[in-house]
Amino acid sequence: MTSERPIVRPLEWEGDAPSGSLVLLDQTRLPSEEVYIAERSVEGVVESIVTLRVRGAPAIGIAAAYGIVIAAQTLQSHEGPAAWIEALERSRHELAGSRPTAVNLFWALDRMLEAARAATSRQDVTLARLQEALLDEARRIHDEDRRMCHAIGRYGAPLLQSAEAVLTHCNAGSLATAEYGTALGMIYAAHDQGHDLLVYVDETRPLLQGARLTAWELMRGGVRVVLLCDSAAAHVMREGRVQAVVTGADRIAANGDVANKIGTCSLALAARQHEIPFYVAAPTSTFDRSIETGAEIPIEERAAEEITESFGRRTAPEGTPVYNPAFDVTPAGWITALVTELGVIRPVNRSSIDAVLSAASGDGSRPRSS
Amino acid sequence: MTSERPIVRPLEWEGDAPSGSLVLLDQTRLPSEEVYIAERSVEGVVESIVTLRVRGAPAIGIAAAYGIVIAAQTLQSHEGPAAWIEALERSRHELAGSRPTAVNLFWALDRMLEAARAATSRQDVTLARLQEALLDEARRIHDEDRRMCHAIGRYGAPLLQSAEAVLTHCNAGSLATAEYGTALGMIYAAHDQGHDLLVYVDETRPLLQGARLTAWELMRGGVRVVLLCDSAAAHVMREGRVQAVVTGADRIAANGDVANKIGTCSLALAARQHEIPFYVAAPTSTFDRSIETGAEIPIEERAAEEITESFGRRTAPEGTPVYNPAFDVTPAGWITALVTELGVIRPVNRSSIDAVLSAASGDGSRPRSS
Repeated sequence: MTSERPIVRPLEWEGDAPSGSLVLLDQTRLPSEEVYIAERSVEGVVESIVTLRVRGAPAIGIAAAYGIVIAAQTLQSHEGPAAWIEALERSRHELAGSRPTAVNLFWALDRMLEAARAATSRQDVTLARLQEALLDEARRIHDEDRRMCHAIGRYGAPLLQSAEAVLTHCNAGSLATAEYGTALGMIYAAHDQGHDLLVYVDETRPLLQGARLTAWELMRGGVRVVLLCDSAAAHVMREGRVQAVVTGADRIAANGDVANKIGTCSLALAARQHEIPFYVAAPTSTFDRSIETGAEIPIEERAAEEITESFGRRTAPEGTPVYNPAFDVTPAGWITALVTELGVIRPVNRSSIDAVLSAASGDGSRPRSS
Repeated sequence: MTSERPIVRPLEWEGDAPSGSLVLLDQTRLPSEEVYIAERSVEGVVESIVTLRVRGAPAIGIAAAYGIVIAAQTLQSHEGPAAWIEALERSRHELAGSRPTAVNLFWALDRMLEAARAATSRQDVTLARLQEALLDEARRIHDEDRRMCHAIGRYGAPLLQSAEAVLTHCNAGSLATAEYGTALGMIYAAHDQGHDLLVYVDETRPLLQGARLTAWELMRGGVRVVLLCDSAAAHVMREGRVQAVVTGADRIAANGDVANKIGTCSLALAARQHEIPFYVAAPTSTFDRSIETGAEIPIEERAAEEITESFGRRTAPEGTPVYNPAFDVTPAGWITALVTELGVIRPVNRSSIDAVLSAASGDGSRPRSS
């Protein structure tokens, strides 16, 4: 679990439960500026998620958990447990509305509210104790994510053993998690084992998380990268330049269909055509077994301006109608394996998923019950 | 061949042979500004092609033809026919180096040099007569392209009859040709026949020809558009939003493999997966039967800055290595039909191509002999 590379962490809690704050790396200002901001209000945390200062399903879950800690800072001692829970429920609702696709967000908020209920059900509850219990729980979520990323790396690195180069999309790295990342965790783990993988990085329109974030964190971690346009990925595969594709996931249905950054589905199709393994790395908290297939996953549509004016210059005529889905769904059958902190799921189907998730149930693992 | 829509023409010759100039719409300034510039030197024409002020295989061919007319303006009367041809050959070489993938460029230059030789082989040749003959030939190339686009539209429109919406990539429209376009010619022809097709337009990274040019000219022509990121095209197909895909071509090998803007190959693959017809529209001058398959087509690599700084702001860390192929090759087997000015070629293979091109040979058609 140790690494000699400079460790990039997108968020940290600073201070104590009643008055500390959530310090975020403002990812919208990368790669040109590395600026950290301290959030001290629920509205601020919501805004940071909506504006993508913090992004990546696991990191969003962690940020939302600390959002509940911040919500608890505004409670009044005299109001009592029932009112505290009511207020925290309102904050949960506010935080849950920030990104409709990321299931970890709901999962983390559920855990925080359960922790709140457990704390308030104790005879000796005080506001200070509730606040402490919430900070403990958020820190546990944060620390579990860190350990999960390293476990994903350990399970995933052997899959890349025979590859000289891999291709990745968007950012499923340190910046999307507590540290290390999921898809990039596999790459960092391979590097930590002395395997000098080259990484082709899709720039990932519209918001260029690949160019701005993945290239930045990989280069900072001493990993060789080549940046390309999303539309060049199939050509790169045809030329035989990459021997594997690795991405993260925003939500995984019970049958293994994966919702992830728009463009993932094209990559999986091109990988299948060129007989290149396509791996999706994600913690088991990304599974939503209440959803049967990818067809039921709601796809967030984002603002037209992300496409027409996101880089300070208008790139399409005024008034151009735009379609900007943030995610797509990759069918389970196009995915070679899912890499989780509990092990590799391969082939990807309902029974192989059930086998891995059920083996872990009851022992504190993360999947929410369906 | 008539249309009521406002006619967009990317280039026109203004003035006479010895002193006229090539007036170009500067496409790098669209969609925000509609600026025309007059080229009066071969270097200027080369620069306009290299910097993509004029782009699209047919339009590049026309511009290069007028480039030879401009080259002839600098010849000296006293030097005589052999020196004139030698000087024009130097200009041909200079113009041919501007874009290595567009076969129409070489084809148009060959035609211009043949016209120059024919003119200088005449007993009564004078410099003025050579200049006249060259302007006549360039105008013929220009006019043939206009007629070809309308013919492609007539042959292609019936293929779109049952479609409510189509998807296109890059710009194979008025702006890439004399007028009307190839892929967009099919769409304009459908509209001219009263079929109100909706057009999904890939923005087309890195230079955004879809967002800047295709959306602009379609909206100006009264065609409904929806702009999207290139990576969303497969998702749009999965959702059943489009019933056909139409693109242009930069070069077509003897077996029907098509070199076109990077991203085309992904689209063809996704269309095939979703059983959506994939049409490539191109004049027969785009065929290069000296090349057996797409594997032999040289793929132009363009500058890294097109990806890392094309929005007026740096989008990747300083020093990020980049791979920026301008084209990819789509295998013939993934293409439903090729639409040419001589008719529809379907299925796409060597013999069906030979049949259409050979039927036309000897009657002044454009394919260059292999």
